[in-house]
Amino acid sequence: MNSNLVWLDKEPKRLHEESAAAARARQDQLTKPPGALGELETLAITLAAFQGREQPSLERIHISVFAADHGVTEEVVSAFPAAVTAEMIKNFVRGGAAISVLARALNATLEVINLGTRGQEAIAGSRTVGLGPGSANFLKGPAMTERQLAGALEAGRESVELALASGAQLYIGGDMGIGNTTAAAALACALLLAKPEALAGPGTGLDEQGVARKAAVIRRALEKHSQHLRTPREVLRRLGGFEIASLAGAYMRCAQLGIPALIDGFIAGAAALAASRMCPGAEAWWLFAHRSGEPGHSAILSALEARPLLDLGMRLGEGSGAAVAVPLLRLACALHTGMATFAEAEVSGML
Amino acid sequence: MNSNLVWLDKEPKRLHEESAAAARARQDQLTKPPGALGELETLAITLAAFQGREQPSLERIHISVFAADHGVTEEVVSAFPAAVTAEMIKNFVRGGAAISVLARALNATLEVINLGTRGQEAIAGSRTVGLGPGSANFLKGPAMTERQLAGALEAGRESVELALASGAQLYIGGDMGIGNTTAAAALACALLLAKPEALAGPGTGLDEQGVARKAAVIRRALEKHSQHLRTPREVLRRLGGFEIASLAGAYMRCAQLGIPALIDGFIAGAAALAASRMCPGAEAWWLFAHRSGEPGHSAILSALEARPLLDLGMRLGEGSGAAVAVPLLRLACALHTGMATFAEAEVSGML
Repeated sequence: MNSNLVWLDKEPKRLHEESAAAARARQDQLTKPPGALGELETLAITLAAFQGREQPSLERIHISVFAADHGVTEEVVSAFPAAVTAEMIKNFVRGGAAISVLARALNATLEVINLGTRGQEAIAGSRTVGLGPGSANFLKGPAMTERQLAGALEAGRESVELALASGAQLYIGGDMGIGNTTAAAALACALLLAKPEALAGPGTGLDEQGVARKAAVIRRALEKHSQHLRTPREVLRRLGGFEIASLAGAYMRCAQLGIPALIDGFIAGAAALAASRMCPGAEAWWLFAHRSGEPGHSAILSALEARPLLDLGMRLGEGSGAAVAVPLLRLACALHTGMATFAEAEVSGML
Repeated sequence: MNSNLVWLDKEPKRLHEESAAAARARQDQLTKPPGALGELETLAITLAAFQGREQPSLERIHISVFAADHGVTEEVVSAFPAAVTAEMIKNFVRGGAAISVLARALNATLEVINLGTRGQEAIAGSRTVGLGPGSANFLKGPAMTERQLAGALEAGRESVELALASGAQLYIGGDMGIGNTTAAAALACALLLAKPEALAGPGTGLDEQGVARKAAVIRRALEKHSQHLRTPREVLRRLGGFEIASLAGAYMRCAQLGIPALIDGFIAGAAALAASRMCPGAEAWWLFAHRSGEPGHSAILSALEARPLLDLGMRLGEGSGAAVAVPLLRLACALHTGMATFAEAEVSGML
């Protein structure tokens, strides 16, 4: 193991339970029947536990999108050509992608990290972490070398530390990588001991035949690596991808440093699953934004005992589903802070 | 029938199908896999059909909260005393209620309409429509006189016309009235031929025994009025309440004048159900914000074939669930307008 990865073994920070209790007590005093704001009450209380104060707020949101190519695209597992990964990095930095639009609308900072694409070209406006021309085809060998895995995890760690240093109160990780639903499904199959047919889905738009081919590719990969899938980190190295490993590293680091991560959909969910196996208890610092339209996501959410906020059939990645859930968190804070108590408003209590 | 209610028979405005088609074509050109934004794509297309333009926007939101007391509270069907209705009107106008906080956060206009409370007091900052000290106890007779029903429907109509005149692009109706989940459940039972046990729920916080008592009250009411429930308007008059009738009138008027209504939870849903029976086709102009934690709401949503955007266990009323869904609509517009097309961004299309 790379010696600079000792941070991986650090435990998650403890939540601030006193602040959660104070927030819970405040919720019960606000002018509404107890519990009537449903999940918005839970969110306010959870954010209080994250921030260590009775009345949390969420002004500063940071979004890091990690992009990388995948060797498994050789096996024709995507409806789009691999060239789209680099093309979309340009679209992110020029402001035309979904996550670019959402970052502007939310007044969030957006960082784009190019971990390695086929052309290995440096793209202005993105941060280049040159791990190679994408991960290797995991039908032929491990997706990543030890060095590449370490570099990807480190990129995730760094992005969280930079976000924290800039004052971010919420971390969103996004993904871009043609072929990455295949890698995420393979990773999740190995971690959950699930069947490829259960977790392979259409991704960017495969037809039924394409999904069957994708499931077959995953089955062959699981067979090829079956003797080597003993630790979650090794599963991640053999079946994941650069951006998936970065997200896993980022989610672990969020928990260690005590900044909440708002988890996006299927790719992010697979990364979170790996992170929860590598850093047990990290889930306490994660909020789950949405249930993806990608069918395998539900198995990942169940395994993480996660109840996502939204279920809008989104399946884009980029962190877009997480970004769309941000206003719910902000409104939960606004209600928690801005509503009058029964005493302040002179409203009668329960009979 | 009151002669000034001829507007009730006006048909819903037609949607602008050409704009919907143009918006659909635009969605398929944006830099994402087709359909990957899920419901947000549908929302953008639907809003285009409402607004008659390919690229809709939602800057100006209007919220009207209708408040009234209910005679059926004599039967002890609520966890809170009836005095809370008037107390909450004061809380709305002073800015301490959930809907007040949400209106500020959304930069929406908030109007509070006092249709009639026990004290019949005029409350500064709210508009008084004096229909009496609340609806009558429907165990003893019709909840409303013809004149009261007409006045309530008219108040709903007026609020929509004022909203439109002020340039609103979206109408939200809210409710406040201790006892109104009993009235809404009775109304929905009569319209859906459902059992009281299926639609009566805890409301503001009844225990199991309280819910059983509430269901029994509704059963007796349905029996008492059974020979007179021939038209939806008569069902509304006998079993509804002032604020429920106003919401029904408002939702019909929204459809007639062509301003979308974003429908809140259980009370709003019962009003929408009545409105859809009185003005068939009006549903085309409605968006459903959320599935309420009040258990009977699901039956209403099914009857209206509505798929709500959110499911957060909210059950507060006031229009709060609708307000919380507004950012989803705005982000749908922002994505639709702000994303680059494949051609603009020079991103490769599907294989």
